[in-house]
Amino acid sequence: METQEEDFTVTPWDVKGRVDYEKLIRIFGTQPLEDGILRRLKDLCGCELHLFLRRKVFFSHRDFDLVLKDIEEGRGFFLYTGRGPSGPMHIGHLIPFIMTKWFQDRFGVNVYIMITDDEKFLDEEDMTLDEARRWAYENILDIISVGFDPDKTFIFQDTEYIGKMYPLAIKIAKKINWNLVRAVFGFTGSTNIGLSFYPALQIVPTFFERRRCLIPAAIDQDPYWRIQRDLAGSFGYFKAAAIHSKFLPPLTGFEGKMSTSKPETAIFLTDDRKTIRYKIFKYAFSGGQPTVELHRKLGGNPDIDVSFQWLKMMFEEDDKVLREIEESYRSGKMLTGELKEYLAEKIGDFIDEHKRRREEAKELIHVFKYDGKLARYMWERELE
Amino acid sequence: METQEEDFTVTPWDVKGRVDYEKLIRIFGTQPLEDGILRRLKDLCGCELHLFLRRKVFFSHRDFDLVLKDIEEGRGFFLYTGRGPSGPMHIGHLIPFIMTKWFQDRFGVNVYIMITDDEKFLDEEDMTLDEARRWAYENILDIISVGFDPDKTFIFQDTEYIGKMYPLAIKIAKKINWNLVRAVFGFTGSTNIGLSFYPALQIVPTFFERRRCLIPAAIDQDPYWRIQRDLAGSFGYFKAAAIHSKFLPPLTGFEGKMSTSKPETAIFLTDDRKTIRYKIFKYAFSGGQPTVELHRKLGGNPDIDVSFQWLKMMFEEDDKVLREIEESYRSGKMLTGELKEYLAEKIGDFIDEHKRRREEAKELIHVFKYDGKLARYMWERELE
Repeated sequence: METQEEDFTVTPWDVKGRVDYEKLIRIFGTQPLEDGILRRLKDLCGCELHLFLRRKVFFSHRDFDLVLKDIEEGRGFFLYTGRGPSGPMHIGHLIPFIMTKWFQDRFGVNVYIMITDDEKFLDEEDMTLDEARRWAYENILDIISVGFDPDKTFIFQDTEYIGKMYPLAIKIAKKINWNLVRAVFGFTGSTNIGLSFYPALQIVPTFFERRRCLIPAAIDQDPYWRIQRDLAGSFGYFKAAAIHSKFLPPLTGFEGKMSTSKPETAIFLTDDRKTIRYKIFKYAFSGGQPTVELHRKLGGNPDIDVSFQWLKMMFEEDDKVLREIEESYRSGKMLTGELKEYLAEKIGDFIDEHKRRREEAKELIHVFKYDGKLARYMWERELE
Repeated sequence: METQEEDFTVTPWDVKGRVDYEKLIRIFGTQPLEDGILRRLKDLCGCELHLFLRRKVFFSHRDFDLVLKDIEEGRGFFLYTGRGPSGPMHIGHLIPFIMTKWFQDRFGVNVYIMITDDEKFLDEEDMTLDEARRWAYENILDIISVGFDPDKTFIFQDTEYIGKMYPLAIKIAKKINWNLVRAVFGFTGSTNIGLSFYPALQIVPTFFERRRCLIPAAIDQDPYWRIQRDLAGSFGYFKAAAIHSKFLPPLTGFEGKMSTSKPETAIFLTDDRKTIRYKIFKYAFSGGQPTVELHRKLGGNPDIDVSFQWLKMMFEEDDKVLREIEESYRSGKMLTGELKEYLAEKIGDFIDEHKRRREEAKELIHVFKYDGKLARYMWERELE
């Protein structure tokens, strides 16, 4: 479903305006990820929930309750997510991968990660296929750095793995007509025939196993799963389940999502500490007051402060510390500069660790793509 | 270009009515294959022209004059044709292959033969992919039986070779939008997204070599080459040249083309002598008179007699013999039964020989698809 509300737009290729997530749940017809279902998950894994769940960064779902039932009753499930390699990755891009890894660690299940070099080439007018493939290589390094299990994770790039996927993709494509993709994705007469075929490919991995597939992904990807859910039964597969994440807001405020073409809106995984600090101090939209005096007197507003929201959504693991920061900032005790300094340190540490792992990841690309246990199996088997 | 004239329709998926080939030349904007150009070809090959050329079974072309120039000036060319494996092949299906082989024999060039199992699966509602693949196997046997050079001919099946073709296919697809395929092929909102992507794939082999590609094919395939010719320059490749064949008329008359779903319209490559004779005597539309007496008196009309037209278009190699038959039939000396008997013998011999070769072809499938010199090269190289 394409949403072009008065105030905001969310499609797989476009996010504009300030997204109203409650409205999205109604428009997309998904379910809110409520406390009850999260408690069931907590009981099942016997662990503390990831902050993405505790703090509702993942806020919506389809059939997540059935995934829990599958776990409870021993049928298991598998995980699927992906990345369109259109440029360098920023911290927001990691959210689905970190969530996916968390589920893999807790339940020991297989993870399939699709790198859609074809889609990005087809969607972006100025991008060459070589560029999309170079970004695929770079992005895969970032994804591996998240720490997936090399023998239970298969990373595949569409233009490489197409030979295996195409027969199943055309079976899916035969059941999707132009009217449907026009309605669901807002395609027009000037949409190219490669991009209009692509939705069939994105559905293929949901049929990689005869178990329920759980897809942690940003909400903008939901339209694909809506089509998948209409088709799955006729193929004898499960309807895909999904949990949907919000977008980490751009540094500059709450409009749209972080964008590679506007570097001031995002922190990239390749930024150095100095750049990170500079961007946060220069661009991070603040809920503080114009002067120290006023701030001490009136206090800051963490609800509209991007630095605080980033801590809450991704970088402050400790609930108690987060609460203290929130209170301190709201009371006026903590200044905007102090909040930004704290965030810059947190992200600096995060990125340093990421870069260290990224160096190691270079040795692992072949394992995740071709040689790991799951990867080998996926290159040997026939899909149908 | 889709043609839906008042009297007839010609698209890659549909031929209806009695095709007016001169009108098609005007509508499609192709060139008639005139005597002058055929004389140039004859001089170049230093041989007798194939009866398909002498008798204008191939009646239209695009840039065939430039192919001759490429030969004259030493640049060479390559051949490309194909088959949609939707069922058993009939004698009419062999026309492009026989023509292609003739050019390969005369000029020693490479031949690429695409088996579009994906297209037929996507186009025909009731066909499964397994069925399309089984027909691919059967049809490839028939095609090999035509006698191509195993080291200069590559037969490839889309669902097998897609891994090599897809990167180039999406580069082509990016330049073809929905409006274009709707206008050219008559696609509608209910066309599936697999079929609407397919034209990009059919264009790929025209870029297999950096030489001019000559495509001997039935005229209904021309819309693909029209798109190819608009795009080729931007890829640094040659515009495809084509020679277009007429359809061998159905046994039952001149409406439409021979059809697998109406077995009385066609002779299949698997028919036995008895069936061939039966079909010709029962169904072949005759230009003869209702009684022997009237026939002797008024004579037959070879111009509307399917048996005579089949001899002329495909089965009587000897121009002198053909002329004698024509005169004899027109004068009333030769009766319809005698004409049919003559044709039934000719086709019987043709099919017997074809079946003999078809047995040998089983040993050659692997050579043409994977192990021959050209096939090996095509599986090793990257396309771009």
